[in-house]
Amino acid sequence: MRLARVAQPEGVSFVALEPDPKSPGEKVLAVEIDQHPFGEPTFTGRKWPMADVRLLAPILPTKVLCVGKNYAEHAREMGGDVPQNPVLFMKPSTSVIGPSAPIKMPPDSERVDYEGELAVVIGQPCKDVPEARGTDVVLGYTIANDVTARDQQRADGQWTRAKGYDTFCPLGPWIDTAVDPSDLQLRTELDREVRQESRTSLLTHDVAGLISFVSRVMTLLPGDVILTGTPAGVGPMRAGQKVSVSIEGLGTLTNPVQQA
Amino acid sequence: MRLARVAQPEGVSFVALEPDPKSPGEKVLAVEIDQHPFGEPTFTGRKWPMADVRLLAPILPTKVLCVGKNYAEHAREMGGDVPQNPVLFMKPSTSVIGPSAPIKMPPDSERVDYEGELAVVIGQPCKDVPEARGTDVVLGYTIANDVTARDQQRADGQWTRAKGYDTFCPLGPWIDTAVDPSDLQLRTELDREVRQESRTSLLTHDVAGLISFVSRVMTLLPGDVILTGTPAGVGPMRAGQKVSVSIEGLGTLTNPVQQA
Repeated sequence: MRLARVAQPEGVSFVALEPDPKSPGEKVLAVEIDQHPFGEPTFTGRKWPMADVRLLAPILPTKVLCVGKNYAEHAREMGGDVPQNPVLFMKPSTSVIGPSAPIKMPPDSERVDYEGELAVVIGQPCKDVPEARGTDVVLGYTIANDVTARDQQRADGQWTRAKGYDTFCPLGPWIDTAVDPSDLQLRTELDREVRQESRTSLLTHDVAGLISFVSRVMTLLPGDVILTGTPAGVGPMRAGQKVSVSIEGLGTLTNPVQQA
Repeated sequence: MRLARVAQPEGVSFVALEPDPKSPGEKVLAVEIDQHPFGEPTFTGRKWPMADVRLLAPILPTKVLCVGKNYAEHAREMGGDVPQNPVLFMKPSTSVIGPSAPIKMPPDSERVDYEGELAVVIGQPCKDVPEARGTDVVLGYTIANDVTARDQQRADGQWTRAKGYDTFCPLGPWIDTAVDPSDLQLRTELDREVRQESRTSLLTHDVAGLISFVSRVMTLLPGDVILTGTPAGVGPMRAGQKVSVSIEGLGTLTNPVQQA
């Protein structure tokens, strides 16, 4: 199932995205879910053609956990090796935006980079999840851009400021509950030029391993998001450009870049 | 006003702590606030003697921002200088516990330290707050213990794992909305032995400066908490010990330490 959060004519709703029975294969309907998308969703009966809704970030996480240097080639381009343990950091929930919303370049930074990533959305409260059952607690998968003020990341040591600006965590376009995350192509394009191209099979710590590691530290709650790390090819964006991250089976997350 | 969050006989409530008119100066009543403590609170009319309630963390923040090395003497004991800009990091909201709740030592760490700190609770949504108006957005002040797995902090580089365990952010006992934070004595005791003793006047970046700096990066929301940094004297705790952080005018936050 594809789960999304949309602005519809009367407010904001969680929806399932389903083929329009009148023109399957062509048109999609946003079918409203009652309350929230965790567990077995129930439907309200309301539905809208996609033209009448706007996709928002598919979830509002209580926390966004991220992993640094989780693709060997990216660790090398940053001047290091892949660390034995996942390196954890957080992005504040206020940094989350949806598809098509502008990434705003802060005046305090000279260099703001894209980082395309596979994002895991947690489906149930959990702690100390064994690696063998890591994916059991997953609601589904979406796409993230771990936008980073590279100059501030280098200057500060801790990465919270550099990665914590409002608009620095685009998420979307939807959550796919059925995709197998183990070997998906990931591609980041800047103004349609390919800048990152890799596969999730090259993740050093895979989804189950990350969930197990993070949940040994902290309780994960429904809707929490884990960003699994970015592959090689990171680079700067300028105001006026458009950045798109595509993952096989998950669609494309596109955001314009603006001066704040 | 002193604002608290309590478990009362029928559930959880925000309350104001007020002198009992029957024995003022001796007894305190927990007077229930309708909904939440932001803005001018309205009261439901229900009240309980303190003996009938249990203090919880006074707020559930959407985010906890923290500042590293903000007292010169502590920066020196950690082997560095005070950085020009505040060093920001985050603790997950799942790390928050209230007074008297146990700090649980994770099996993965050999050394878990206390760090007594003044905590600022934000009262309104804000972004880009000028330093001169920094304290205008404050709801009040409370006490925090920025519990840290020191060995993991050193090993990881990023501090999220070391500072992000469940129970690693004791907050309380209440929020004082009237205290002037500029020169308060802060004292941390481990089993009644004084380990940290300093004054908030020695903060390198003061409350207004921190709010201004953080809000240039991210929108702050009502209930968000900023930990202002710890003074010199940090050190390890063992299971079975009790740690107390006292700040002049704000009371004492005491937590027992347990093996997880």
